[in-house]
Amino acid sequence: MSNPSVKIVGVGLLGTSLGLALAKHGIVANLEDQSKANLRLAIEYGAGVESEGEPDLVLVCVPPDLTALVVLAQLKKHPRAIVTDVASVKGAIAKEVEEHPELADRYVGSHPMAGREKGGPASARADLFFARPWVITPRAGNSQVAIDLVEDLALRIGALVSVMSVPEHDEAVALVSHLPQLVSTLLAGALNSGTTSQLALSGQGLRDTARIAASDPDLWVQIFSQNAGALKPLVSQLRGELERIDDAISNIDSAGSLAAIHSALADGNRGIAQIPGKHGGKYLEYQVVTVVIDDSPGALAALLTFIGEIGVNLEDLNLEHSPGAAIGLVELEVLPANAQKLIDSLIENGWRLV
Amino acid sequence: MSNPSVKIVGVGLLGTSLGLALAKHGIVANLEDQSKANLRLAIEYGAGVESEGEPDLVLVCVPPDLTALVVLAQLKKHPRAIVTDVASVKGAIAKEVEEHPELADRYVGSHPMAGREKGGPASARADLFFARPWVITPRAGNSQVAIDLVEDLALRIGALVSVMSVPEHDEAVALVSHLPQLVSTLLAGALNSGTTSQLALSGQGLRDTARIAASDPDLWVQIFSQNAGALKPLVSQLRGELERIDDAISNIDSAGSLAAIHSALADGNRGIAQIPGKHGGKYLEYQVVTVVIDDSPGALAALLTFIGEIGVNLEDLNLEHSPGAAIGLVELEVLPANAQKLIDSLIENGWRLV
Repeated sequence: MSNPSVKIVGVGLLGTSLGLALAKHGIVANLEDQSKANLRLAIEYGAGVESEGEPDLVLVCVPPDLTALVVLAQLKKHPRAIVTDVASVKGAIAKEVEEHPELADRYVGSHPMAGREKGGPASARADLFFARPWVITPRAGNSQVAIDLVEDLALRIGALVSVMSVPEHDEAVALVSHLPQLVSTLLAGALNSGTTSQLALSGQGLRDTARIAASDPDLWVQIFSQNAGALKPLVSQLRGELERIDDAISNIDSAGSLAAIHSALADGNRGIAQIPGKHGGKYLEYQVVTVVIDDSPGALAALLTFIGEIGVNLEDLNLEHSPGAAIGLVELEVLPANAQKLIDSLIENGWRLV
Repeated sequence: MSNPSVKIVGVGLLGTSLGLALAKHGIVANLEDQSKANLRLAIEYGAGVESEGEPDLVLVCVPPDLTALVVLAQLKKHPRAIVTDVASVKGAIAKEVEEHPELADRYVGSHPMAGREKGGPASARADLFFARPWVITPRAGNSQVAIDLVEDLALRIGALVSVMSVPEHDEAVALVSHLPQLVSTLLAGALNSGTTSQLALSGQGLRDTARIAASDPDLWVQIFSQNAGALKPLVSQLRGELERIDDAISNIDSAGSLAAIHSALADGNRGIAQIPGKHGGKYLEYQVVTVVIDDSPGALAALLTFIGEIGVNLEDLNLEHSPGAAIGLVELEVLPANAQKLIDSLIENGWRLV
């Protein structure tokens, strides 16, 4: 198949990254943006050019609440083009587009699940979508040719494509992306009432649980708003669970309070086991081996060089920080079958285990 | 100061680790446990011996809901000894001990903030407490000599000691440890309603937020129960916040709904900025540089060796997993002032940035 001609509308983080990724694969996109400064920046970075030709495919990469409007404008402007977008909620956009049935068949929604904390063309990376999920959400009326055009582009830049209906997608991201954001946000909000000496006891558990609370409020208010329908039952259920726990904690001596708390904790154990692990199956129970090193990249490199030499594969690695200490704790996660070999080799060679 | 004679009651993870740590520093503890098998195991590991002498200091390392009982028994059994414990909630234990005023002055509560996912003597590590916070919670009646005895022991094995009153401690851990556990547990519980295709879209955000939901329900029901008093206002406030968000999401088109959601997101931004960073100050905004490597420890080692050579210090490092891909994404976090040097050097030397 010959290269399609591609137009990218909106050269923020996602649009510019798409342009860079396509350029690496031989496709020079036509770029468009209302901001002349962003457009110039994206062109200077090498994300594409400003040109006039008719595109085969238009990628709309504008903020969620502008996406439907821009998708419709592009469908009108380019009457033979397929138009897709990158917004993280698909239902609201599909509904607006379907109010124009003469245009809607050429719109194929998609959602590359990649991003960074920072926006704008200057944060763009050619490999932003590499090895990340990219969900395509075809609708009745989309031709297979149109769907294939979007899928081929996603595959070409190395994304991991899956196909879902629009409601399936929106329900999935409500659970695995939007609910975690809400929970993390509420937890982090509670920290505003903490004192310095309380927060000094913060450990890795709090840091991990609250990490994504640093996300951009302006973007996330649009996402919550557009996906309110799919989020509503999940948030209501969470509210019910929290009410049960609050009642149990507020009446800790009453009958059934400990059973209610224990049941929630056990449900959490079962829930986390549902997350697929790195190897595509269920979450594997890795064994953690913790090593003490100097807090320098050279020390960590020496450790990993050693592990590479003994031929043990790491499944995961975490650095733990100890405020006030000049050392670092490295948690090495390995398959249980490899743990003893790793531990023995480390000890024999003078590494300091915790 | 000469070495105190130390007795450890309860040789699970914490007791055995304490024995191992003390042994490394020249103190052979007297071990005691109701389980003969655990006691033998701990002795074989080198955590101490079984002996009869009168201790200067008794460390009670039994489950939270047995701690007060065992502390009192030890105070009676050893009328000259100082007794401390390692439970993560201090108020409930102090209250029970204070019902025996003739004994209570010799009890000094403490809380070494360390642990592992796995319990039992076989999981013990000599350096479990090394560079971790250890809170001592003196009460009226404790002599300075008694407090110093506990503090000296904690410092001797490398812990980072801080001193708080009992209520200060319990309120602090309610916020920085118990509330995150609750939030993570409830989120993970919601995953039980997810389908395989929904959970296949799980990303690092969900994994981090739900991680500690894998903790032991039997232990945590005791912690929540004992610290219900300090947790109650935090959980009630969280419930109120979640109700506001649930109402906003359920009535997304009503006036004020978006403002309520945006305000919660902004509060979360402010809250996470309260967590102290590695350097003891407020959370620093690190710049993230993401590198693509082969998914092998050798590749990661080569990367870190290179970073060590160019002299850039890593503030944090995360591995990101891409299900189905044979590559790994490494997120390097550096001080903003070092980011450009790192990026330029990596690119010049052929590393693949995302």
